[in-house]
Amino acid sequence: MGSSILHVHSSQHTYPIIIEPGCRKRTFAFIDQYITRKPTKYLIITDDNVAPLYLEDVVHSFPSSETVETYVVPSGEQSKSFKQYEETVTAALKYRLDRRSLIIALGGGVVGDLAGFVAASYMRGIPFIQIPTTLLAHDSSVGGKVGINHSLGKNMVGAFHQPSLVLYDPEALLSLPEREWRSGFAEVIKHGFIADKDLLEWLVTHVTSFQEWDMDILSEMLYRSIQVKANIVQEDEKEQGVRAFLNFGHTLGHAIEAEAGYGAITHGEAVAIGIVYALRLSEKCFEVNLQSAPYLEKLKSLGYQLDIPKQLSADGLLERMSVDKKAYNQVIRFVLLKAIGKPVVQGMSGTVLLDELKREVK
Amino acid sequence: MGSSILHVHSSQHTYPIIIEPGCRKRTFAFIDQYITRKPTKYLIITDDNVAPLYLEDVVHSFPSSETVETYVVPSGEQSKSFKQYEETVTAALKYRLDRRSLIIALGGGVVGDLAGFVAASYMRGIPFIQIPTTLLAHDSSVGGKVGINHSLGKNMVGAFHQPSLVLYDPEALLSLPEREWRSGFAEVIKHGFIADKDLLEWLVTHVTSFQEWDMDILSEMLYRSIQVKANIVQEDEKEQGVRAFLNFGHTLGHAIEAEAGYGAITHGEAVAIGIVYALRLSEKCFEVNLQSAPYLEKLKSLGYQLDIPKQLSADGLLERMSVDKKAYNQVIRFVLLKAIGKPVVQGMSGTVLLDELKREVK
Ligand SMILES: NC(=O)c1ccc[n+]([C@@H]2O[C@H](COP(=O)([O-])OP(=O)(O)OC[C@H]3O[C@@H](n4cnc5c(N)ncnc54)[C@H](O)[C@@H]3O)[C@@H](O)[C@H]2O)c1
Ligand SMILES: NC(=O)c1ccc[n+]([C@@H]2O[C@H](COP(=O)([O-])OP(=O)(O)OC[C@H]3O[C@@H](n4cnc5c(N)ncnc54)[C@H](O)[C@@H]3O)[C@@H](O)[C@H]2O)c1
Repeated sequence: MGSSILHVHSSQHTYPIIIEPGCRKRTFAFIDQYITRKPTKYLIITDDNVAPLYLEDVVHSFPSSETVETYVVPSGEQSKSFKQYEETVTAALKYRLDRRSLIIALGGGVVGDLAGFVAASYMRGIPFIQIPTTLLAHDSSVGGKVGINHSLGKNMVGAFHQPSLVLYDPEALLSLPEREWRSGFAEVIKHGFIADKDLLEWLVTHVTSFQEWDMDILSEMLYRSIQVKANIVQEDEKEQGVRAFLNFGHTLGHAIEAEAGYGAITHGEAVAIGIVYALRLSEKCFEVNLQSAPYLEKLKSLGYQLDIPKQLSADGLLERMSVDKKAYNQVIRFVLLKAIGKPVVQGMSGTVLLDELKREVK
Repeated sequence: MGSSILHVHSSQHTYPIIIEPGCRKRTFAFIDQYITRKPTKYLIITDDNVAPLYLEDVVHSFPSSETVETYVVPSGEQSKSFKQYEETVTAALKYRLDRRSLIIALGGGVVGDLAGFVAASYMRGIPFIQIPTTLLAHDSSVGGKVGINHSLGKNMVGAFHQPSLVLYDPEALLSLPEREWRSGFAEVIKHGFIADKDLLEWLVTHVTSFQEWDMDILSEMLYRSIQVKANIVQEDEKEQGVRAFLNFGHTLGHAIEAEAGYGAITHGEAVAIGIVYALRLSEKCFEVNLQSAPYLEKLKSLGYQLDIPKQLSADGLLERMSVDKKAYNQVIRFVLLKAIGKPVVQGMSGTVLLDELKREVK
């Protein structure tokens, strides 16, 4: 089984993304090869689901001469809290990490975002690498957005802090529960919608179930989807322009996650619903037919629930959308599609959004 | 009375520092003149000592068409806490600050560091300006270092986030208590020691008391001292090299502040003691005579207490110094002087530092 590599350019540095089955077991070798300034010590941050599965593999890749500390946070979105942030900083201080120490985020998007924000702010910024273990993290581990949540909004506090290396081991995904595949796959679909119609077609043909994966198909999917993300973040590191397109499906998605209570619905499940809503708005706004039926059918056949959960209220969702980070002066900026692969950002009035929401929920 | 202006170049942008008596009353006019992208709204963050003195002056400078919110934190170092950080973010969210809103830090270094870190991390970074109201803040408001404290160390969490404008009103300093003049003046002296012997001489002649100030002398002192800081941070924005020189006197200074309990001794009082210690180490290490007696005499005549407080322990101070952000692999990196204006960074062993500490405390 092959290894593939992508390079992402950022204003801070260029970093490689390695996609290779089994690579988690050679973590130290990759660090040694790709990270030029030798770290003084290492702190692996992971969660309590991932730790029993893969922590040992990573730790054992280090020679005994290296100082490797580990810190395990509770799994789940609630670890992206101010409290967990402070506790993780405390751990880093107790382990005496210095400015040349390396933080290793081993886990999904929660671990990546939290550990990344700790790295971004610890002593005003130290290096970190990502070892993503969820499908969703193919998205979150690339591009340098890191951060934590606030009860008034997701990811409201954070930084742009680029990893020094991303080590993606598709084998490590095989232990993911169905629900987490669904969560991550929504971002793959999103990447198709905003930039790569061929990818959508490829997915319809090649992805038939989340239960069984051919390693080559899985690796290729990761590669193609990451390629879309990497191209966009390279062009617009700090979200001044095209990077906004990555929020396709996310404005409502975030609102649903927040309204439902973080964790009640996965990020990707919420995003899938947001995608359907954004497609509908796009068709209305631009009077086009995006012919997205086959892709939505694929989503349904993979177990997605594409309606807004009935217990949520339209007003509540609208209120959430208006505090979204992409809102300026309370005009909600929505990513819509003029065609598949042709996203635009559109200022939307509350009335139009509410009308469309009310077709589904009260 | 004149106005002077300095421009500081950073990788993010170039920002002006205005030094002008009364300028706080024209805050909006300066923003309008120097900040190209008009902010959607403003949040002034200040503390409960400064608010009754100057908040109204600043607020009244805005036309009624602008949305200006205010948030007052308790005065003192304890506001640079995780808790106050979270509460300030909560306020920003409640006021619905968006990515194009402007945070205004009105106060001393505490307000500047806290508000700056909120600005650096709120929605992954929004613009902010500094309106320093202490002498010490002539240092802290320039260079973009922002952050908060941890019980295990000062400024352990933070970011590099450059202000968009610094508005320095020397008039606003006239309400400072003696102790705060002393706190800030230590950084002026430090700037002299590391880069500008002429400034030291000028200070000996022109600064005779903190009770009475000629506005021109005060403005000139601010200008000259800021010039030293600005030159250094321009050359080394992210503290990879020469910026370390600014830590002259700070390694022990920080340790003293932490050991004594934040707030028991002011930053500058601690730094003054650290300067004396660093001068002594320098003379020992390089076998030179720095002839610093006249400057230390000036410090004493201005009320400085230059000995390490007797209740502190040498071991405790050493322990604190070894978790300093400038320590790598637990080698403590000290800024020493080969001559006045010729700083170097020197790795120092614990033994030498301890010996020297033990000449003063147990
Ligand atoms: N930074 C970004 O650019 C970005 C982009 C998208 C999403 N996100 C963030 O990512 C987060 C969601 O990421 P996520 O879905 O990976 O969440 P997650 O990290 O919570 O992982 C989901 C669940 O899977 C478990 N898990 C992880 N790896 C596993 C494995 N290999 N086998 C079995 N179980 C495993 C985790 O313990 C957790 O219970 C959200 O907080 C979201 O805001 C960030
Ligand atoms: N960011 C940096 O580069 C940098 C550099 C040096 C110091 N600092 C930080 O700065 C902080 C110390 O700054 P500081 O000494 O200004 O502390 P401070 O902000 O606490 O101000 C000192 C006291 O003076 C009061 N005060 C402020 N302005 C006043 C005025 N005009 N009249 C009367 N009272 C006034 C304050 O309420 C406070 O009680 C420390 O936390 C230190 O770590 C940061």
